[in-house]
Amino acid sequence: MSNLLSGIEEITLMGPGPSCIYPEVYQALSKPTLGHLDPYFIQIMDGIKELLQKVMKTKNRLTIPLSGTGSAGMEACFVNLIEDGDPVLILINGVFGMRMKDVATRLGAEVDTIEFEWGKPVEVEVVAEKLKNKFYKIVAIVHAETSTGVRNPVAEIGDLLRDSETLYLVDAVTSLGGIEVATDDWGIDALYSGSQKCLSCPPGLAPATFSDRALDVILNRQTKVPNWYLDMSMIAQYWEGKKRVYHHTAPINMLYALYQSLYLIIEEGLENVFRRHQEMHQRLVEGLEDLGIKLLVDPPYRLPQLNAILIPEGIDDARGRALLREKYKIEIGGGLGPLAGKIWRIGLMGHTAREENVHKVLNGLREVVGRK
Amino acid sequence: MSNLLSGIEEITLMGPGPSCIYPEVYQALSKPTLGHLDPYFIQIMDGIKELLQKVMKTKNRLTIPLSGTGSAGMEACFVNLIEDGDPVLILINGVFGMRMKDVATRLGAEVDTIEFEWGKPVEVEVVAEKLKNKFYKIVAIVHAETSTGVRNPVAEIGDLLRDSETLYLVDAVTSLGGIEVATDDWGIDALYSGSQKCLSCPPGLAPATFSDRALDVILNRQTKVPNWYLDMSMIAQYWEGKKRVYHHTAPINMLYALYQSLYLIIEEGLENVFRRHQEMHQRLVEGLEDLGIKLLVDPPYRLPQLNAILIPEGIDDARGRALLREKYKIEIGGGLGPLAGKIWRIGLMGHTAREENVHKVLNGLREVVGRK
Repeated sequence: MSNLLSGIEEITLMGPGPSCIYPEVYQALSKPTLGHLDPYFIQIMDGIKELLQKVMKTKNRLTIPLSGTGSAGMEACFVNLIEDGDPVLILINGVFGMRMKDVATRLGAEVDTIEFEWGKPVEVEVVAEKLKNKFYKIVAIVHAETSTGVRNPVAEIGDLLRDSETLYLVDAVTSLGGIEVATDDWGIDALYSGSQKCLSCPPGLAPATFSDRALDVILNRQTKVPNWYLDMSMIAQYWEGKKRVYHHTAPINMLYALYQSLYLIIEEGLENVFRRHQEMHQRLVEGLEDLGIKLLVDPPYRLPQLNAILIPEGIDDARGRALLREKYKIEIGGGLGPLAGKIWRIGLMGHTAREENVHKVLNGLREVVGRK
Repeated sequence: MSNLLSGIEEITLMGPGPSCIYPEVYQALSKPTLGHLDPYFIQIMDGIKELLQKVMKTKNRLTIPLSGTGSAGMEACFVNLIEDGDPVLILINGVFGMRMKDVATRLGAEVDTIEFEWGKPVEVEVVAEKLKNKFYKIVAIVHAETSTGVRNPVAEIGDLLRDSETLYLVDAVTSLGGIEVATDDWGIDALYSGSQKCLSCPPGLAPATFSDRALDVILNRQTKVPNWYLDMSMIAQYWEGKKRVYHHTAPINMLYALYQSLYLIIEEGLENVFRRHQEMHQRLVEGLEDLGIKLLVDPPYRLPQLNAILIPEGIDDARGRALLREKYKIEIGGGLGPLAGKIWRIGLMGHTAREENVHKVLNGLREVVGRK
C-alpha cells in the first residue's frame, strides 16, 4: 500500500480559497498537541480571542473560532438566533446568500429575500424600502460574495438598521483579513468567517463574533438551540467562563494555526494588509487588461481578494484550468451556479496576495488565452 | 507582542483524549494545502474512505470523516435520522449517553432512556425487555464510555435489533482503533468516532459511517435535515458522487493527518494494534495494583484504552493532576459529573499505548500517592 501523501505537490492556491498558507502557519500546525483543558492551551485560547477582536474590529467578549469550516459559522449564527417562525430577511446576490436562505428555512424561520443580479451589489435603497413595511428579527447579508467577487455595502445596510431591534448578521468569510471588517462600527450583531481565505490558514475553523445584544437573545430563547454542537451558550462557557467547562474537544492544532495567522496579520498591520491586497489586485487587473480579459464586476464593487474574470470567447473552461493546474501548478476557481462555465475566479487572498503570484497567474493565463 | 506558540511544551497526553500524536501525523499536518476540488486531493479522499472502511470493518459506501469533532459526529447521526416525534431509545451509563439524550431531545425526538449505574455496563436483558413493549426508530448506545472507562455490549445489543426495522446508532469515539469495532457484523446503521482518541490525530474530525438502510432513511425524509452543514445527502455528493459537488470546504490538512494515522494503523495491523492496547493496559493495571490504586470498573468491562482509577483517600484531585502536569509533563483526566473529584482517567489510546508511557505515568503516580 503506497502512501498517497508522499505525492502531494505544492500548488499555488489562487482560487476562491483555500489560499496559500504562511510558512509559519504550517509550522504552527505541527506544534505538540496540548489537552483542551491544559492551562497553557487556555492562554492560547485567550490570545486567539484578543487577536480576533483586533482583526474583526470589535470589543465583543464572545469572539471565538468555531470548530468547523465557514459554513459551520453560518449554521451557528442562524441556529442560535432563529426560533420557529421568526421573520428573517436575506439579501441575495450569489451562492452564499442562497445558502443563507436554505440554512434559515431549514431552521423554521419565515424567510423573505431580496434578490439582486449576480455580479452586482445589493442596493441599499431597495433594502430601505423593504424595511419600511415589515419588522425583521434578523437581516442577513454576505459581505464579500465569493461566487461573484462583489463587495456588498455592509456599512450602509448597518446604518439602515441602527436604533432598530433587528439583529444584523454578516458573512465575512472572504472579506475578513482582505478588506476592512468593522464589526462594532457597522452595528453587526453576528458575524462569521472562515480560516482558509484571507487569514491564510488551512480550512477547518470559523471565527465568529456575537454582540452582547445577540448573546442576550441566545440566552433568553424560548426553546433550546436545536444544535447541541453549535450551541453558543455552552460554547461560551468553555471559551469565556471563569471555570472553563468542557463542551467538545477543541481542534487544538488548527487553533495553533489560526493563532499564528492572526499574529502575522496584526504584526504586518491591518491597514498594510489591506493595502497589499489592493495593490496586488490593481496589478492583476492591469495585467488582465493587457491580455484582453474582462472582469465580471464593475470597479467600485470589486473585491481585491477575489477577481471574477469572464472566460474569453473560444476558451474551454475545464481545459484552461487544467493547463494552469498541470503546467503552472496554479489553482484558480470555476464559476458556480448560473456563472458556471462563464467565469473564472482568481483569488489574491492573504499570503496569496504577493507580486510573484500575480506574475505567475498572468503568465499562465497568457498561454491559456493564446497570447504568447 | 510575544508569540505564545513558542512556549508550547511537549506533554505526554494520557487523559481521555487528545492522545499522543504519531510523529508521522505531525508531518502530514503540514504538507502543502491542496484545493478541496483538486484531482489529487480527491484521490486522498478516496484513500481515506478505504482506510476507514478497514478500520471500521464495514463495506458501507458512505464512510467518511465529518468536518467537526466527535460531538459533530453525534449531532450528524441524530440530525440526519430523526424527524419530529420519532421514538428513540438511548442507553445511558455516563456523560456521553447523557449527551445523546440532550442532542436527540433538542431535535424533537420522543426520547426514552434506560439508565445504568456509571461505571457499570449496559445490561442486555433490561434492554431486551424494553424492546418487547415498544418500537423505536433508533436505539443508541456508547461503545466506550469515555467518562467511566466502561465497554458496553454493542455486539449483543446489535443481536437484539437484528431483523427489526430499528436503526442502530453507535458512538465509537473512544473505541475505534483501540478495541474491535465491527460495524457490519454487529448490524450498526450509523456510527461516529473522533480523530483524537485511538486514532492519535489532533482533534477536529469525526469519522462516520452510515449503512445503506440509514442512507435510505435520510434520502426519504419528509422534511429537510434541519442542519445544512451536516446534511449527509449533500455531503455524500461531495465524498461519493461521480461529479464531486462542492458542499463546504473540507478541512484539508486535518484530512492529511487522518489519512496518515489510519495508514499507520493498517500498516501495524488492526489485531496487533488491539493487542498492544490490551498489553499496555495489563501492565498499567499491575503497576496500579502495586501502588494500591483501585480501578472503578470490574475487569470484564474495562476498556484497555481508558482506565478510570479511584483517587486514593487523602489525595487532592487538582493538586495530584497539577503535580503530574508540572513535574512529569503528563496529562491525565479528572472525573466528570457525579465522578468529579472521585476518579482520574488514564488514557492509553493509540500512540499513547506504549511501554515508556506506562512507566512514566506509574512513576508520577508513585510520587502523587506518596509511595516513593
